[in-house]
Amino acid sequence: MKLWDKEYTLNKAVEAFTVGRDYVLDMEILPYDCQASIAHANMLCSIGVLTTRERDALVSELNAIIRDVEKGEFSITPDQEDGHTAIEVRLTNRLGDIGKKIHTGRSRNDQVLTAMRLYEKAGLADIKDRLDAMKAAIREFITKFGEIAIPGYTHTRKAMPTTVGVWAGAFYDAFCDDEALIDSCARLIDQNPLGTGAGYGVPLALDREMTTREMGFSRVQKNPIHAQNSRAKFDGFILSTLSMVLFDMNKMASDLIFFTLPGLDYFKLPEDFLTGSSIMPQKKNPDVLELLRARYSEVMSMEIQVRANQINLISGYHRDAQMTKEPVIRAFDITRAGIDITTLLFQALSVNEDACKAAMTDELFATKRVYGLVAKGMPFRDAYKEIAMAYAESKHEK
Amino acid sequence: MKLWDKEYTLNKAVEAFTVGRDYVLDMEILPYDCQASIAHANMLCSIGVLTTRERDALVSELNAIIRDVEKGEFSITPDQEDGHTAIEVRLTNRLGDIGKKIHTGRSRNDQVLTAMRLYEKAGLADIKDRLDAMKAAIREFITKFGEIAIPGYTHTRKAMPTTVGVWAGAFYDAFCDDEALIDSCARLIDQNPLGTGAGYGVPLALDREMTTREMGFSRVQKNPIHAQNSRAKFDGFILSTLSMVLFDMNKMASDLIFFTLPGLDYFKLPEDFLTGSSIMPQKKNPDVLELLRARYSEVMSMEIQVRANQINLISGYHRDAQMTKEPVIRAFDITRAGIDITTLLFQALSVNEDACKAAMTDELFATKRVYGLVAKGMPFRDAYKEIAMAYAESKHEK
Amino acid sequence: MKLWDKEYTLNKAVEAFTVGRDYVLDMEILPYDCQASIAHANMLCSIGVLTTRERDALVSELNAIIRDVEKGEFSITPDQEDGHTAIEVRLTNRLGDIGKKIHTGRSRNDQVLTAMRLYEKAGLADIKDRLDAMKAAIREFITKFGEIAIPGYTHTRKAMPTTVGVWAGAFYDAFCDDEALIDSCARLIDQNPLGTGAGYGVPLALDREMTTREMGFSRVQKNPIHAQNSRAKFDGFILSTLSMVLFDMNKMASDLIFFTLPGLDYFKLPEDFLTGSSIMPQKKNPDVLELLRARYSEVMSMEIQVRANQINLISGYHRDAQMTKEPVIRAFDITRAGIDITTLLFQALSVNEDACKAAMTDELFATKRVYGLVAKGMPFRDAYKEIAMAYAESKHEK
Amino acid sequence: MKLWDKEYTLNKAVEAFTVGRDYVLDMEILPYDCQASIAHANMLCSIGVLTTRERDALVSELNAIIRDVEKGEFSITPDQEDGHTAIEVRLTNRLGDIGKKIHTGRSRNDQVLTAMRLYEKAGLADIKDRLDAMKAAIREFITKFGEIAIPGYTHTRKAMPTTVGVWAGAFYDAFCDDEALIDSCARLIDQNPLGTGAGYGVPLALDREMTTREMGFSRVQKNPIHAQNSRAKFDGFILSTLSMVLFDMNKMASDLIFFTLPGLDYFKLPEDFLTGSSIMPQKKNPDVLELLRARYSEVMSMEIQVRANQINLISGYHRDAQMTKEPVIRAFDITRAGIDITTLLFQALSVNEDACKAAMTDELFATKRVYGLVAKGMPFRDAYKEIAMAYAESKHEK
Repeated sequence: MKLWDKEYTLNKAVEAFTVGRDYVLDMEILPYDCQASIAHANMLCSIGVLTTRERDALVSELNAIIRDVEKGEFSITPDQEDGHTAIEVRLTNRLGDIGKKIHTGRSRNDQVLTAMRLYEKAGLADIKDRLDAMKAAIREFITKFGEIAIPGYTHTRKAMPTTVGVWAGAFYDAFCDDEALIDSCARLIDQNPLGTGAGYGVPLALDREMTTREMGFSRVQKNPIHAQNSRAKFDGFILSTLSMVLFDMNKMASDLIFFTLPGLDYFKLPEDFLTGSSIMPQKKNPDVLELLRARYSEVMSMEIQVRANQINLISGYHRDAQMTKEPVIRAFDITRAGIDITTLLFQALSVNEDACKAAMTDELFATKRVYGLVAKGMPFRDAYKEIAMAYAESKHEK
Repeated sequence: MKLWDKEYTLNKAVEAFTVGRDYVLDMEILPYDCQASIAHANMLCSIGVLTTRERDALVSELNAIIRDVEKGEFSITPDQEDGHTAIEVRLTNRLGDIGKKIHTGRSRNDQVLTAMRLYEKAGLADIKDRLDAMKAAIREFITKFGEIAIPGYTHTRKAMPTTVGVWAGAFYDAFCDDEALIDSCARLIDQNPLGTGAGYGVPLALDREMTTREMGFSRVQKNPIHAQNSRAKFDGFILSTLSMVLFDMNKMASDLIFFTLPGLDYFKLPEDFLTGSSIMPQKKNPDVLELLRARYSEVMSMEIQVRANQINLISGYHRDAQMTKEPVIRAFDITRAGIDITTLLFQALSVNEDACKAAMTDELFATKRVYGLVAKGMPFRDAYKEIAMAYAESKHEK
Repeated sequence: MKLWDKEYTLNKAVEAFTVGRDYVLDMEILPYDCQASIAHANMLCSIGVLTTRERDALVSELNAIIRDVEKGEFSITPDQEDGHTAIEVRLTNRLGDIGKKIHTGRSRNDQVLTAMRLYEKAGLADIKDRLDAMKAAIREFITKFGEIAIPGYTHTRKAMPTTVGVWAGAFYDAFCDDEALIDSCARLIDQNPLGTGAGYGVPLALDREMTTREMGFSRVQKNPIHAQNSRAKFDGFILSTLSMVLFDMNKMASDLIFFTLPGLDYFKLPEDFLTGSSIMPQKKNPDVLELLRARYSEVMSMEIQVRANQINLISGYHRDAQMTKEPVIRAFDITRAGIDITTLLFQALSVNEDACKAAMTDELFATKRVYGLVAKGMPFRDAYKEIAMAYAESKHEK
Repeated sequence: MKLWDKEYTLNKAVEAFTVGRDYVLDMEILPYDCQASIAHANMLCSIGVLTTRERDALVSELNAIIRDVEKGEFSITPDQEDGHTAIEVRLTNRLGDIGKKIHTGRSRNDQVLTAMRLYEKAGLADIKDRLDAMKAAIREFITKFGEIAIPGYTHTRKAMPTTVGVWAGAFYDAFCDDEALIDSCARLIDQNPLGTGAGYGVPLALDREMTTREMGFSRVQKNPIHAQNSRAKFDGFILSTLSMVLFDMNKMASDLIFFTLPGLDYFKLPEDFLTGSSIMPQKKNPDVLELLRARYSEVMSMEIQVRANQINLISGYHRDAQMTKEPVIRAFDITRAGIDITTLLFQALSVNEDACKAAMTDELFATKRVYGLVAKGMPFRDAYKEIAMAYAESKHEK
């Protein structure tokens, strides 16, 4: 059964090809789809398309679906194509003609767009909460170890002195930047597309302000073509935003893999974060950090997929957009998991104070020496050259 | 139970993070892993590490695992991490100490590399077979409709006359190019990495020529660091090669979406390839072509993931490489499905001869007119200008 | 002459390889570099590192450099490596020891970061101004032609009626979204990195609030490691933001190429936007729109370059970052040119009212018919099926 | 003057936008364009379109242009758009009506395709020559230092012993793989497109076998639509192939940056490959290696640009293809420069034998110990566990 069933049946191979994994992925979206359908039913009632009795029946059954999803007692069959169909089928099976009215005033195009957008708004808010927890772990880490001096590196070479606190604080600040970006992204997508139909509106006097209020959007996305065109664009921007979080994690994980090199040992990774080798019995490997690091490329490539998907296409919905759903859902999963493991990491990470002390070798203080001469009145560039010459000579002597 | 179990247990959150989806994905690889383990056991026997009895027991049990996988009676548990562990656990459970010997002379690093490479070799061969079937469908289509004239386009504008045969033949030739690329790619990866251990060999006198013969590789990949470094590189190149096939399908699907525009109607898509709208009852949409078209971006982005994954990493295995397994497996699935649906498409596609005829309008023959003047001795550029002027004037008259 | 000249000379091949195109690109950045150097000199004076006389000499010479750049009378030689060196050389040549003091309290790392950020802030503000001009052109276009009805498309197939105003308004709204994103991006980068040295501060009591005020930044980027790490990250985000503008232009250009297809002719492109063929005298091609469309892929790929550049690198400056300068500068140029040509386009674009009217064919109103039945009390899904059946039958009759 | 000049002039802003940098880039292509034009003129003569006198005049003038390009005495003006026009203008200025005949039987579409393909074939051959020189430098390096033992790493952690020879040999083998890929790529593009016109042939009986022989192509690219469609596809594949070379350099450079870490010091970089800091007088930085490393992301992103450029476009030339020329030319330049600097590097690189010796610490031999027990008959997994336990205890004791 499909919403658009006509007088012919789809070739089975064609059906398998077109449905793809939607019937699995849509399980994530279903509660948001029901939430939007409830707002839609309330609005249809308020403009007289549904009676109060019909509305009540629909709302009650939609809430029942949400509960069934939570209990794991609702599923979408491949021949239903997607969650939207599964919902309408259930409503029609249970409520008869009333179920057949739920799709009045909407298209699957604005329905999926609305459900995804609610899912994404919730996802971004959740990411921010998790980032807050992670930032708290970093703050605590700084409280414990922040004062310890460690070498700062440029070009993967010792450069000047810094501290554990400055190092960890750099990521704290980076994640603050990320939160601001998430806020911007959330503001961008906080536009209600419900009521834009398939991109050209619906010949019915919908009260879009009402559904906007009911679903908690801050504004109506008025232009229906804009609503459709914004789908993949917003998805791409969400992925770009999430990938900024993973960018920082990539660098943090790279730092920790480097700073825990045997011989450097500035930090001590918690033992239960280390894994072993199937052949070398002595090995304890930073697999968790490596996998964390690798997530950046993964989400960055998903962003490219979503954005390349739409290149050179004219306005209006194309089925290609179906392919943008999975990367978005997976990117949220990946980002969430990355943040949580980082929180655990900072809670368990410690600093090897002796190793740090031993690492604060002479060359880290060369610049300080330059500024000693500057303080005595020597022009900076001359002071620089004098110290540089001294270093060059001391090397030659060796 | 893990191959490297030590005196501590992994944090559960850490375990979930590191295992990822390997325990699912490895089901695809298991038969190849067993095949490689059989070759390995035979070789260990030939160099005296295993007795004939031990070898026979291992080979017999490995074959049993292959059969169980086929029957759907073998599974990998998340706490086993991966298929390699699941195999060793099964062998040890059933064969006791003999099972504990299977990993002699290898590491999971060369084990997974070998299994993946066998999987990939088989995958490329299978893709070529399917391309052959598709090319046969195109040839038949050309036999039926090739002579019909249609407009050729440049800049999405009518340019000069061409035929259905030239159009379909362009894709036929493109797929021939792709087959040559697949051959090159298959040659590149046809190097046996088994015996390179974790990238630094194994302190044991392995007979790598023997396993090479047994598994049907054409040559030994001698240098063990090269073997490890080549993993993600080869995977990236495989994805690049597969994406070439999808590049052509993207263009072919784009052509068909355009050529079946109401008003053009040069081709007639089989009705059971068309899907409908949930709101607009008149619609018959080319969803299959759109999804086919979208696959190119998907696989191209996977290529980027695999290739970005390794940027700036030093030689030797890093766990980041785990993230390259899924894109490779999915890209093979996607390419296979894309080819098969294209075969079905060409079998069912027909040409609307009347529409084609009507489309062969005057401006398509402007260049022919230029060459009429050239034949009479006018220099090409003068002939071009004379005809151009005539067209400009005829427009002004209207 | 280089700022870090030591007792050896660089291999000439090495010098050519490392300098790259910096000595060309830095010409774009020079005025911002001088502006930052003036703020730096003022601050050094206020904390007692420079005398008023020294400061005045430096500020006056830096202003002279800015004027020379404007007049095209300043250049950077390849052996100077970059603009930073060229500035210091000029100051030292003209002012002697005073010139050797300008680099007190800074590194080239925070110097280039500051200059780039000023360049980028100015660039984003300029892009917004140009977008405003473009939006004005779109508004005027809507005023002239907005009421004209045209077919709306989904799946590149006629779907439902819409208007020129809704179509153009969709892009107007999209560009408003882009402006909000540009604002977010501008807020993100509005952090003064001057004073963070090479990522580990400077052993001198700088007044960073003062330079922040002088250069018009809204806040200090306090953490010096964060400052360095944010360079490529912010650059990547700027490119992501600019590419959103080009995403919309890609779709707009795709629409216009499609809507001006001979046979559709909804819009009329200005004749002087069309170019010809070297062989086909009748051709008038939408090259401008094609090149506009192609800019999206170009800037998207630059974003990937900038972001891939940093993958798996530890904190702190790496020379790899040099490679992010050119994509940023080019992306600003491309975006600017794209916006300006779009403004010209909308000023000259007109609508072919007769063609639009003729295109409003029957099937566009099928959904309206469904809602006619809904208004009479038929459940939506039943109404949909009734009309769908009618369409199917009418096709069979033909 | 343009080849397609009509009765109107292009808007100046439009002209600037469409010409882009073609008039600069085409200088690289011009000699190949002339070479193809000579083959074309010879063929036109052989089929009777040109007289022998006309052919001789054209060939002589085309050779004169090649010489002028070499001497730097030929330039393309922006209003000529491109090199093709510049050539025809020169021929017509010097030879009158004869010049106007050179474009008989071709379009700029197949002309640029042919010139680019000749350029690319020469480029690939040149890359192979340079790779050969680089491989010779690696071989010599191995001869000098190959026997020295160094630690092998997995997960950026010491794993097992290896040698300088195995390390350098891994790259030698990787570059051999790359040469095979370059051969495949060269075979792919070794198809003569001249004579396919604008994608739909030319109404003239051209002798395409003759031009194929004259230009040294191995076969005719018969299908004219295939020829046009293959342009961006082949360009993308060339970039994919070149990026494989840079992938290996990225890893080699990453290894050297790591292996020359103060404290490891396995290798000694030539001093004139090191650059300094503007603030820290002690610094000697591996900038050359960092820039070499960064080239991979650069070319990888160019590949994406070229490939994304064509997504969702129908068959036949689109002006978007103009944007693929620059990435191809730059990628050849970058790859060439990268190979040459690597050759210099291996010629000057030396090994710090004492540091290597000191680095061969105990844990590198843990696996060897396992195999000692295996040799005595203990099953591998038991031997592994025994040694693992011993390591764990020794750590606890400390």
